[in-house]
Amino acid sequence: MPERVSVREVGLRDGLQIEAPVPTEAKLRLLEAVVATGVPRVELTSFVSARAVPALADAERVAAAALERFDDVLFSALVASRTGVDRALAAGLTDVEYVVSASDTHSRANVGRGTEESVALTAELAETVHAAGGRLEAVIAIAWDCPFEGPTPPERVLGIAEAVVAAGADALCLADTIGTTTPLRLVELVRATREHAPGLDVGIHLHDTRGMGAANALAAVTAGVTSLDASVGGLGGCPFAPGASGNVATEELVYLLDGIGVATGLDLRAVLHAAGVARDAVGHELTSSLLKADGGAA
Amino acid sequence: MPERVSVREVGLRDGLQIEAPVPTEAKLRLLEAVVATGVPRVELTSFVSARAVPALADAERVAAAALERFDDVLFSALVASRTGVDRALAAGLTDVEYVVSASDTHSRANVGRGTEESVALTAELAETVHAAGGRLEAVIAIAWDCPFEGPTPPERVLGIAEAVVAAGADALCLADTIGTTTPLRLVELVRATREHAPGLDVGIHLHDTRGMGAANALAAVTAGVTSLDASVGGLGGCPFAPGASGNVATEELVYLLDGIGVATGLDLRAVLHAAGVARDAVGHELTSSLLKADGGAA
Repeated sequence: MPERVSVREVGLRDGLQIEAPVPTEAKLRLLEAVVATGVPRVELTSFVSARAVPALADAERVAAAALERFDDVLFSALVASRTGVDRALAAGLTDVEYVVSASDTHSRANVGRGTEESVALTAELAETVHAAGGRLEAVIAIAWDCPFEGPTPPERVLGIAEAVVAAGADALCLADTIGTTTPLRLVELVRATREHAPGLDVGIHLHDTRGMGAANALAAVTAGVTSLDASVGGLGGCPFAPGASGNVATEELVYLLDGIGVATGLDLRAVLHAAGVARDAVGHELTSSLLKADGGAA
Repeated sequence: MPERVSVREVGLRDGLQIEAPVPTEAKLRLLEAVVATGVPRVELTSFVSARAVPALADAERVAAAALERFDDVLFSALVASRTGVDRALAAGLTDVEYVVSASDTHSRANVGRGTEESVALTAELAETVHAAGGRLEAVIAIAWDCPFEGPTPPERVLGIAEAVVAAGADALCLADTIGTTTPLRLVELVRATREHAPGLDVGIHLHDTRGMGAANALAAVTAGVTSLDASVGGLGGCPFAPGASGNVATEELVYLLDGIGVATGLDLRAVLHAAGVARDAVGHELTSSLLKADGGAA
């Protein structure tokens, strides 16, 4: 069991991307509450087509405000293309998460090109990011199951991992994009990926769609994972499953890690406050059980 | 990791007890759906004061109908007193769960007497149950935390465990009544309890109030626990925390155990169907993430 885990708050990106657009000022109030939790890393937004994801059309404004207002937090953004990298760098962010979907069908539906093409783009993007002094993390989406293709063959994920690492990726993240994995499959893929990318950080991005978020996080941490994504309130979800959960809730992750003696640097009460701010920002209840039990008052 | 876990469905008791009374016929439709899941054990109801728990005032009718209609399932009921045991036996049930709260304050609030007095009653109840050919399981409530007294000293739980076993209890169950425990505390108390009750089955009763249900179940099973309570849909909750979850959802527990290769005998689709029936019976959404993601259709 590691002594410490680095949490990345992704609610502003993964959480808000499927919501009706939230005003930029409300996002910045949420960001302020998120920063106050003590979280070391925040994925701020995604530099993607505003037509495809209208909720994140203000990516430049959010990034600029974040960099101006807050210190001591590592801000990053999700990108899926060369344009995305250029926009992120122009906005002053140097760290990017570059998504490659392990499912060809999902990849085409998501970014209009197949897995191979996405992998092939990695070297150019990594070079650009490195030239700006930044880091490129490759996020392998659909690492366990695809809504179109079914289970993802682990060797496919491992092949992508090897290729993006060879192309210059500085870190890896395995994403349970539709929240289907379970602890054993999770740990097996993490271990195999580590063997294919020695020395690199392999983080985990979990969704709580089937209530497995905390159990998978426990398994990941027990297997030595030290980088975990989470979203306050469990913000997010799936447009095709009303009421379905988004990412594992930051407050539930912190509650779990506090309970098993793994340090995060986050303050649970501040996280619950931020979850309440997130709930106000989107104007509806969130799925986090802990937020409901607690109420989320500051 | 055990090869097999025995799930006990407690939705009809722990789930329904805080709901507005559900008509007996709706309970029996839910029971039919629950039995169809393949679950080996069902806690049907609680023989307690109808004034205190109006939702379970039909305990005798539910027990009689269950015993008449269904075979191959071990039916039991929760009791808290001599009257409860007598009523359960008169209704044809021989297996009872007898609750002893490890918190004196909670015990007095719950059953009008302290922990010591409850423990002292065990021998008489066990003798009565044994004379009828049944088994008495002692459920130690508030095994980890009390809403009034704070953390429960583990030695208090161990003392109760020793005493009720000496008094004739045939099995033990540790209940995380308010859903606060986390995997490490859970496993530590399970291990210590086993040492104080060698040879006896030590089951676990979890609530998902803070989203820890599946993570705690994973930890319990990894530590060798083979008896787990769950409720379809995560039915239940807390009257003082609107929207707060009840027990760990049976469908999420089965999804988890299926995923890690631990047999339960339950069919996941049948469990999701039963969860949908439970939702219809209470007339509101339930908290299970998996039920929401799935929809719960048969």
